Amino acid sequence: MYAGIESGGTKWVCAVGTGPDDVRAVERFPTTTPAETVGRAIEFFRRHNGIQTIRAIGVGSFGPVDLNPQSRHYGHITTTPKPGWQFADIAGPLGRAFDVPVGFDTDVNAAALGEFRWGAARRPQGLDTFVYFTVGTGIGGGAMVNGKLLHGMLHPEMGHMILPRDPVRDPFEGACKFHGACLEGLASGPAMEQRWGVRAEDLPADHPAWALEAHYLALGVVNAISILSPQRVILGGGVMGQRHLFPLIRAEVKALLRDYLKVPQILERIEDYIVPPDLGDRAGVLGAIALAEQAFDSSR
Amino acid sequence: MYAGIESGGTKWVCAVGTGPDDVRAVERFPTTTPAETVGRAIEFFRRHNGIQTIRAIGVGSFGPVDLNPQSRHYGHITTTPKPGWQFADIAGPLGRAFDVPVGFDTDVNAAALGEFRWGAARRPQGLDTFVYFTVGTGIGGGAMVNGKLLHGMLHPEMGHMILPRDPVRDPFEGACKFHGACLEGLASGPAMEQRWGVRAEDLPADHPAWALEAHYLALGVVNAISILSPQRVILGGGVMGQRHLFPLIRAEVKALLRDYLKVPQILERIEDYIVPPDLGDRAGVLGAIALAEQAFDSSR
Repeated sequence: MYAGIESGGTKWVCAVGTGPDDVRAVERFPTTTPAETVGRAIEFFRRHNGIQTIRAIGVGSFGPVDLNPQSRHYGHITTTPKPGWQFADIAGPLGRAFDVPVGFDTDVNAAALGEFRWGAARRPQGLDTFVYFTVGTGIGGGAMVNGKLLHGMLHPEMGHMILPRDPVRDPFEGACKFHGACLEGLASGPAMEQRWGVRAEDLPADHPAWALEAHYLALGVVNAISILSPQRVILGGGVMGQRHLFPLIRAEVKALLRDYLKVPQILERIEDYIVPPDLGDRAGVLGAIALAEQAFDSSR
Repeated sequence: MYAGIESGGTKWVCAVGTGPDDVRAVERFPTTTPAETVGRAIEFFRRHNGIQTIRAIGVGSFGPVDLNPQSRHYGHITTTPKPGWQFADIAGPLGRAFDVPVGFDTDVNAAALGEFRWGAARRPQGLDTFVYFTVGTGIGGGAMVNGKLLHGMLHPEMGHMILPRDPVRDPFEGACKFHGACLEGLASGPAMEQRWGVRAEDLPADHPAWALEAHYLALGVVNAISILSPQRVILGGGVMGQRHLFPLIRAEVKALLRDYLKVPQILERIEDYIVPPDLGDRAGVLGAIALAEQAFDSSR
């Protein structure tokens, strides 16, 4: 049995199990202090560790995180603005509590791994290079490249790519404290709320907000295609629960690319190219279980 | 001995050798028709194949190219606008002429491989994830990710990422026939020439053209960092021969990132992070020799 944690800035989701058809238990609780929150996760796993043995723990976390195994801050959340969480050690106390390997990555890389293992990256055949965006309170992007999660220098920060904004069409200057008009600054849930004065989920489907949202998300997808050449783009997160966004984004991606890329994936079957996660809102925590599985396998 | 071809839209560069310190012969000739151009390369290699045996051939080509080994157009240039070159088979006739394996990739991926094998990605220690941009007649980007060249769906087309343009600072709408204001449309050599009415190499170093050029290239680098998290960014090509661009780009990348990424590579040692190729203008043809070496090794 594996233990998985989706470590979000507002809540943690913990689960034990082996995959989407075998989740034995789930618990959700608010993200308070690191000590208390990690403590609650340990307590939850201990209750289940009595029944069956936890072989490894996986954590997909909000970031930025340190993924360099040579670093003394490996497995920590690092320079987050979230009070009390700067350089909080997550992997360390979990591994010590159960004396098992811990797989640790970003929340979006975990979700990408979940979709690689059990979801949208497996059909019709396994992909080895794809992107997973989550669009919600923030925007994050993870990626699998050549069959491995993408870390590179640090980890992708796809929400912070810089996009064009037409001030006539959109006078809102962007919500990102660092970059203003980056993808997250223009298209996250809070950006929508600041721009329109209404929470995103309360905007009706025919509101012009959605065409603009689709435009920015399509710009993000087009830049990810140009730079990373993914075999598929998976879009998850709270905002993408608005399923009417998908056809708008697909049409806008085609319009922005202007037939430059002559590939059937985009020209003929874009509905299979830009897709929601198969695992839905469980992608994160199931991805954490997949991280645990990977940590266990590589420890043997 | 290996044979390498840097297949450009205006000229081909062919070389035989085993690496930067052992180039036995080089020949350059203009890109005419596919049959004539491939024929001249074969003739050149035949002259040298008598003296020592060519074990494999590598080609780094202008694109778009088909890199899918399962495709019937593998090793072809595909939908290029260059007259006569649509779906030209490059790898096929070369392999048949010498009955050796052929390594085939984009010109920029080849250059990235050259820098991985012998150049800027080897110091101070080997990197496995980095980006190589070439800025000249067009703008292309290649990448090594997790130790393998990035192909994904097709291959990166980094020159076509879409960037913001401030029409007050820069009224020029961009030179790209497909996207107008993409990176290539705003920052290639021809874009500079169209914007300023003077060839890029004739603009003095204190001309405002260079600050604007550095701004656009920095936007491209920032988006590549956000999406791909490279451990280094190598900038080559004719325009980058203007070495005064490097400090401008580095300063602009730092300004655009606004300390969001708290990594020493950017905050402390950006002069080692954004660098010219060690192999200079030989990166392409030496990368092609590295592709040949790779093809030979994987054929054994």
